[in-house]
Amino acid sequence: HYSEGVCTVTLIPGDGIGPEISAAVQKIFTVAHVPIEWEVVSVTPVKGPDGKFGIPQAAIDSVNKNTIGLKGPLMTPVGKGHRSLNLALRKEFNLYANVRPCKSIEGYKTLYDDVDVVTIRENTEGEYSGIEHEIVDGVVQSIKLITEGASRRVAEFAFDYARNNGRQKVTAVHKANIMRMSDGLFLRCCREAAEKNPDIRFEERYLDTVCLNMVQDPGMYDVLVMPNLYGDILSDLCAGLVGGLGLTPSGNIGTQGAIFESVHGTAPDIAGQDKANPTALLLSAVMMLRYMNLPEHAAKIERACYATIKEGKYLTADLGGKGKCSEYTDEICQKIAAE
Amino acid sequence: HYSEGVCTVTLIPGDGIGPEISAAVQKIFTVAHVPIEWEVVSVTPVKGPDGKFGIPQAAIDSVNKNTIGLKGPLMTPVGKGHRSLNLALRKEFNLYANVRPCKSIEGYKTLYDDVDVVTIRENTEGEYSGIEHEIVDGVVQSIKLITEGASRRVAEFAFDYARNNGRQKVTAVHKANIMRMSDGLFLRCCREAAEKNPDIRFEERYLDTVCLNMVQDPGMYDVLVMPNLYGDILSDLCAGLVGGLGLTPSGNIGTQGAIFESVHGTAPDIAGQDKANPTALLLSAVMMLRYMNLPEHAAKIERACYATIKEGKYLTADLGGKGKCSEYTDEICQKIAAE
Ligand SMILES: CC(C)[C@H](C(=O)O)[C@@H](O)C(=O)O
Ligand SMILES: CC(C)[C@H](C(=O)O)[C@@H](O)C(=O)O
Repeated sequence: HYSEGVCTVTLIPGDGIGPEISAAVQKIFTVAHVPIEWEVVSVTPVKGPDGKFGIPQAAIDSVNKNTIGLKGPLMTPVGKGHRSLNLALRKEFNLYANVRPCKSIEGYKTLYDDVDVVTIRENTEGEYSGIEHEIVDGVVQSIKLITEGASRRVAEFAFDYARNNGRQKVTAVHKANIMRMSDGLFLRCCREAAEKNPDIRFEERYLDTVCLNMVQDPGMYDVLVMPNLYGDILSDLCAGLVGGLGLTPSGNIGTQGAIFESVHGTAPDIAGQDKANPTALLLSAVMMLRYMNLPEHAAKIERACYATIKEGKYLTADLGGKGKCSEYTDEICQKIAAE
Repeated sequence: HYSEGVCTVTLIPGDGIGPEISAAVQKIFTVAHVPIEWEVVSVTPVKGPDGKFGIPQAAIDSVNKNTIGLKGPLMTPVGKGHRSLNLALRKEFNLYANVRPCKSIEGYKTLYDDVDVVTIRENTEGEYSGIEHEIVDGVVQSIKLITEGASRRVAEFAFDYARNNGRQKVTAVHKANIMRMSDGLFLRCCREAAEKNPDIRFEERYLDTVCLNMVQDPGMYDVLVMPNLYGDILSDLCAGLVGGLGLTPSGNIGTQGAIFESVHGTAPDIAGQDKANPTALLLSAVMMLRYMNLPEHAAKIERACYATIKEGKYLTADLGGKGKCSEYTDEICQKIAAE
């Protein structure tokens, strides 16, 4: 339904450099004539009737109404007991699959050429259950929770994603040699999904082995699916191969909606100084456009972004350049306008 | 006490290529006149009076008597319910710290130069507790167990290790932003150890961040200490940077003993064909010699091993060469004899 007419998208600019990189994306979208409207909301936690801090109702309503959001970095509120707002959003909207493509960017040199992998992370449970106890003094347990429902859902998502994106193989990443029951259940769900999707190749690998192989020969992998924490780790490792979190997009997909976000920090030290790199948020927005079935707009913006990076003239400081956020953004806009 | 007179060391050759790489190490030790005697034991599981399979009593007795062992790769027995023997040994002898140095080897080219990091892994608990339950059908929990005792012990070990090995910094690796209580406890123990060791720099970093940084700039790190699973992951990642598990040593240190081991697989496909690479086991044996206070013998063997790799003439197939295990071993022996 997204491609018919003008859609409204919830925009959560976020903290630190969030507002400036969000403004950059908005500017680029305008120049590219993307048929969407933004509904800007804040998620600065508010105190509820129960005295606890939470996501403001207006933000929740906006995402629920629009079913699609773009989000800048959020800082975790200081003080004991505050959980990450990033996590709160994933839970609130049941965004069960976190998709992070890591692709080498032509013209931005790293040690690796031709990286092209996608990590798909279970996004709601596992080591992120939040269930912890102190059994006796000095003895703590944290519970890793794996359910068949969530595992199956993300496994099937991975195969669908692979097919819809012209990919060949899904690798299930696990430590079922150690966590035989929990990772074992996850793995079984992946095997079952593999059986239903015989057109996509399937393999299973230990997380430690994948980390080792990934730094030696990332071409061994294609789409990877895994429990929550493993995805946290492996997606950052893969981002490192292609240049870091300033260059890699991320999408959180749920049954009733999706939020795309840059996963780098808020960089308070450079906030407001026109030095921030908007690439990760822009490429997340490009992912969002493809998800919304606006592939031409996505491709146009992506081309302009990559061309600007390749040219190298306006790279921001984090990429080793001297460009300002505004110069980099304007260059992308010019390339779009000139097409 | 190790350096006085001839010590006996328990040798567990292991499965697959284990016997041939163990023989290679024994040969090299003989040529280098290392003042130790080997007591060779098998750890092939035997059925106990309770019907369960376990480590043979003779192997347990040998390690308990000698307090020091060298171990080749072990295969995990097939069949439901068998836990890894590698893990059983770590638990049996309470080998609480797993030390894995990863150092670039001159002459063996990878994408990275000058890697020089040491991962120190808590080796007895954490995600490896083995405690798992199926709560209801399709809902499984695994328990990550963190205790103050084990955390403090490995944290203090890391600082001692840093000092004794001329290193500058210890980085505690954690996800206490997610597992606030368990990783929080581990982190607190690291902070306390840091306070007691003000001569060694201390920093704390998220595991995902460390993985990202490690693939971009491993020089950022020195000694790293972390809970069990994180060590499993990060040590393999680091091994990948310098050439893989065929080149990296490992030591499991306990209060009453230590077992040094190569952590690669048993490679059954090439077993018995004189194709195996003994380097990881040899470098583990070199670590053992340093631990036993035999630094000259350690240095002599290490030099010969590195020189042989640098020459490149007899590299085994896994390192891209055509050498046989025996040729590579003989070359190391000749270099030692010629010194
Ligand atoms: C900010 C933090 C809670 C988060 C996580 O651990 O998932 C981040 O590392 C990520 O990958 O999105
Ligand atoms: C063999 C396996 C059980 C083991 C582990 O997970 O610890 C291995 O990966 C290691 O690093 O020693």
